[in-house]
Amino acid sequence: MSELEERSLQDLIGAADLTAVDSWLGERSVVEVAEELERLPREERAVPFRLLAKDRALDVFETLDPAVQQELLDGLRDANVGQLFEGLDPDDRARLTEEMPAKVAQRLLAGLPPNERQMTATLLGYPDDSAGRIMSPEVANLPASLTAAQALDRVRRTGRTAETIYALPVTDDQRRLVGAMGLRDLVLAPADALVGDLMDTEVYSAPVTADQEEVARLIREANLLALPIVDAENRLVGVVTFDDAMEVLEEEDTEDVARSGGAEPLRRPYLSVSVLQVARSRVVWLLVLIAAATLTVSVLDLFEEALAEVVQLALFIPLLIGTGGNTGAQAATTVTRAIALGEVRFADLTPVILREVRVGLLLGGMLAALAYLPVMLLFSVEIATVVSLTLVSICTLATLVGSMLPLLAQRLGADPAVMSAPFITTLVDASGLVVYFLIARAVLGL
Amino acid sequence: MSELEERSLQDLIGAADLTAVDSWLGERSVVEVAEELERLPREERAVPFRLLAKDRALDVFETLDPAVQQELLDGLRDANVGQLFEGLDPDDRARLTEEMPAKVAQRLLAGLPPNERQMTATLLGYPDDSAGRIMSPEVANLPASLTAAQALDRVRRTGRTAETIYALPVTDDQRRLVGAMGLRDLVLAPADALVGDLMDTEVYSAPVTADQEEVARLIREANLLALPIVDAENRLVGVVTFDDAMEVLEEEDTEDVARSGGAEPLRRPYLSVSVLQVARSRVVWLLVLIAAATLTVSVLDLFEEALAEVVQLALFIPLLIGTGGNTGAQAATTVTRAIALGEVRFADLTPVILREVRVGLLLGGMLAALAYLPVMLLFSVEIATVVSLTLVSICTLATLVGSMLPLLAQRLGADPAVMSAPFITTLVDASGLVVYFLIARAVLGL
Repeated sequence: MSELEERSLQDLIGAADLTAVDSWLGERSVVEVAEELERLPREERAVPFRLLAKDRALDVFETLDPAVQQELLDGLRDANVGQLFEGLDPDDRARLTEEMPAKVAQRLLAGLPPNERQMTATLLGYPDDSAGRIMSPEVANLPASLTAAQALDRVRRTGRTAETIYALPVTDDQRRLVGAMGLRDLVLAPADALVGDLMDTEVYSAPVTADQEEVARLIREANLLALPIVDAENRLVGVVTFDDAMEVLEEEDTEDVARSGGAEPLRRPYLSVSVLQVARSRVVWLLVLIAAATLTVSVLDLFEEALAEVVQLALFIPLLIGTGGNTGAQAATTVTRAIALGEVRFADLTPVILREVRVGLLLGGMLAALAYLPVMLLFSVEIATVVSLTLVSICTLATLVGSMLPLLAQRLGADPAVMSAPFITTLVDASGLVVYFLIARAVLGL
Repeated sequence: MSELEERSLQDLIGAADLTAVDSWLGERSVVEVAEELERLPREERAVPFRLLAKDRALDVFETLDPAVQQELLDGLRDANVGQLFEGLDPDDRARLTEEMPAKVAQRLLAGLPPNERQMTATLLGYPDDSAGRIMSPEVANLPASLTAAQALDRVRRTGRTAETIYALPVTDDQRRLVGAMGLRDLVLAPADALVGDLMDTEVYSAPVTADQEEVARLIREANLLALPIVDAENRLVGVVTFDDAMEVLEEEDTEDVARSGGAEPLRRPYLSVSVLQVARSRVVWLLVLIAAATLTVSVLDLFEEALAEVVQLALFIPLLIGTGGNTGAQAATTVTRAIALGEVRFADLTPVILREVRVGLLLGGMLAALAYLPVMLLFSVEIATVVSLTLVSICTLATLVGSMLPLLAQRLGADPAVMSAPFITTLVDASGLVVYFLIARAVLGL
């Protein structure tokens, strides 16, 4: 085995050594196989996948990123594709369908048994990013009037198709949600206790149109196995399970991280995207940023005389605007994450800004004090005064801008993460330069 | 209720209207109460908390951030503190203990019943950030030799204290892990089927010393409810549940996000930290960055003659180094996230760098082409040539540095996220300036 471990799956495929590929696959867990498949070039994924046993193939397929799932289907024969598609849960199937050309999706949906097709179609009818898209409509619910023994019997009878039987929503005769209980409490309860008495009536739920991210965050905060999803009449229509919530949160975090670095998310594993796709995810932001950066050229052009008179002023430009950018990036990153975690809302704008401005004054004051002496010794008292005053002003300005913009973006319905470090940096660059030269003019009498 | 909703918990506390506080609390869910408590100043949290019913108080307490838990304990009377502490799961108790002064922790531990104290002490004996710290030692395991009916009986008898009974590790007579099954399969199985036949033998597990983040990622990737944790002899010692995994991942992501913005993580809710604590989380990075930025002063000092001769060169400094910084930040952010998601490892260094350099050339080339004409018209052919050549060079350099450093940091055992946007930007600033002036000298013949 150690010898095999040395060789990667890609090497084995390259050597066309199918026996070795087969035993490589046999020795790996589902997660490991899925991870390696995602690292392979797309045209090489079908061969090892087809070597997997049928049950395992479905498990591996479910673990793959939806974008990779779709690419893999392209490389498989129709019979295999239909089988895989039918084996998926309705919510996974709905997600995969979004990735496909409409024609392929229609053909695959048409090949499903009627009830599966119906469930998938219902999910696809809900808005993008709504809880309805990721919920499982196959719920094991309990009428409140059953005894524990009857309820357990019911779970045994109907539970096989449900996505989870661990979290059991309790409903009245109109299928309205009235409570919830865990299978655990049902198993541990006396046989004749009533579900209505056992259930927890303080039950979390979310409307089917609720935002996926909010639903996922509630599941995480409340440590839920599954969250009941209801329609406008509070009737149970599905559940969102913790594993789907984890995926949503991972995707949202990936999106936030990408945007905070000034790029759009790739939405698929890094090694599986082409150079062109990577470039495309970044080019728009880069153009926006360079357009904003032309402001700095104009500002400097405006102050060209001052610059020509005291060339030494140019020496501090990168240091000063860099420090402003860094302070702004720090504030923006902290506030954006606090928004993502639900710790801060738009209503907190004033306290957040006040706090960040004080942080900026504190940090700027400290940097100014540190910079004064060395700049004075190496250059002059005047330059040292200009640099120190600019540091305080720029740091305060940067924390102000950096904390305010993410909150404003959220208020306007945009992703707060688009107020990214590069964006804040670029904004602070131009305004910081204006501050710098105004201070220089005043102090140096230019 | 609508009237109450208008007033925040803080207002009600400020008005000392305890009846209103009480009904406010009664109308909110556990998660909502916990969120509001976290937003209150620390000295105001004890009053509403003590108004909560005993069971609810424990639920709310468990939902709070560990740092807030500790602060809250400071404000409660000893009897309440002991009760709360005893009510926690051993893993939550271990986590909370880390936040406390050693003396307080010892006193609280001494007040526990012996078996609870023992379990907590065992967890605290495992290394920081290891799976042992977050696992629950109270596991409902099944011997492989039982029938389904016997196993269900056993779960009923022993399951009350276990953290979860949904994921059931199967062990041999030496308590070695041999398989696992879900309570679901046990409930749905025929009464006389053997656990040894029902169980899944392809079972995920992790050693007790494994890194928390890796364990959490495995739980997410494999969609597990709980992961069995074993000692060096493969004996079952605990389980890590999905909710603890979600918390670990959230904390890791928060840490990554903070570092990617050039700050250390706050490790507690944003509004609950003081201005000084915020400043402290940022000052070290800011000093490192400004120290690195003094390089740019030296570089410009070196080229001061060229600068004095063609002052126009100064105009493009912010734009050029800003664009370099942005491209580098994009590359660093993408690669850091790919590392965090396990998509990219150090072994991928060469392909990642090659890919990023090509992205850099592509983006730089595009920007250069766009910039040439306007710069030529507004300034001169020579300046346009210098700016365009510098854009290509700086973008390529930036993607190289931005993609390489996170992988190198990981290789050296550091957090790849410390190779943050601000850090990469600052590094690229100085080297970009050198490139700029070398190109300018060559083209302009300075």
